[in-house]
Amino acid sequence: MFMPEIVTLSALFEDELRDVYDAEIQIVGVLPKLLEAVNAGQLRAALETHLEETRSHILRLNQVFESVALRVGGTRCLGMEGILDEVAELMEEGGHEAVLDAGYIAAVQRVEHYEITSYGSLIAWAEILGYSDALPLLRANQREERAADAVLSDLARSSINLQAAAAGLQASEASLSPVN
Amino acid sequence: MFMPEIVTLSALFEDELRDVYDAEIQIVGVLPKLLEAVNAGQLRAALETHLEETRSHILRLNQVFESVALRVGGTRCLGMEGILDEVAELMEEGGHEAVLDAGYIAAVQRVEHYEITSYGSLIAWAEILGYSDALPLLRANQREERAADAVLSDLARSSINLQAAAAGLQASEASLSPVN
Repeated sequence: MFMPEIVTLSALFEDELRDVYDAEIQIVGVLPKLLEAVNAGQLRAALETHLEETRSHILRLNQVFESVALRVGGTRCLGMEGILDEVAELMEEGGHEAVLDAGYIAAVQRVEHYEITSYGSLIAWAEILGYSDALPLLRANQREERAADAVLSDLARSSINLQAAAAGLQASEASLSPVN
Repeated sequence: MFMPEIVTLSALFEDELRDVYDAEIQIVGVLPKLLEAVNAGQLRAALETHLEETRSHILRLNQVFESVALRVGGTRCLGMEGILDEVAELMEEGGHEAVLDAGYIAAVQRVEHYEITSYGSLIAWAEILGYSDALPLLRANQREERAADAVLSDLARSSINLQAAAAGLQASEASLSPVN
């Protein structure tokens, strides 16, 4: 470990900024694979939009680094690594298309929530540190993460979960359903 | 991999339930160590309360398993493992007490947000599956996770972040602050 001691709030801000920067980069690496795995067209469209947004989040974070005179770069985000390992695990499993889609939505919402709270911390610290150029950029990223989470909730409740439940009924009729 | 294919929404519900059950158990393992590391009395008190709540979440989840006639048990939650690795990483670092406290709050809020969204998925699925005995238990857990997250946000904004920023000013005066 060659990390410096965290003596100041600005050092903590830098730590968290590098963490979320790496998280966004990890997401850009995984979303294209997930796009190939999802089944419902509406879900694919929502995730395609979010992939584009995620790329723009990285560009905004580049500006945040510049605004506080830090070199651009991430440090490995272990939290996002674990969350994305769960996405990968789900992609390796077989099952009914609509049921897997419901699972993908839940998995991506865990991604969104990690980012929503990380941006929340960064925003609170930027306010106190007077990082006025960074604030609108961080807020824009958080706003889009919240919106993406809401879109996925709506999609799950309005269609995907219902299709997944219907799949269960079909499976029951075909005696494929595990007893529970 | 000996996991069954996810053919039904009830099988997906079981997967997610075992994931969050393991997550809660992991949290109960880590929070006592974090309690030793935190500095501010108010933060320690908030985390002690949440440790007790987390133990009660596990008891409620036992009831959820029973209500849907599933054996009680978790499967390794990789997402929470990564998130808690970040807590451990922070505990290993040195720094100013108030700054580290601000970091601990952010790290625990990532824990809370993982659970808030996981319970959200479980609740949405339980509604469709007609798991009426499970619903109030899952909603109670989610409500306490949300409340814990709000308590931590308030604590950060009302005192810990300000103390952390003051620490930075002291550090600057002592010329210990990294240039940024």
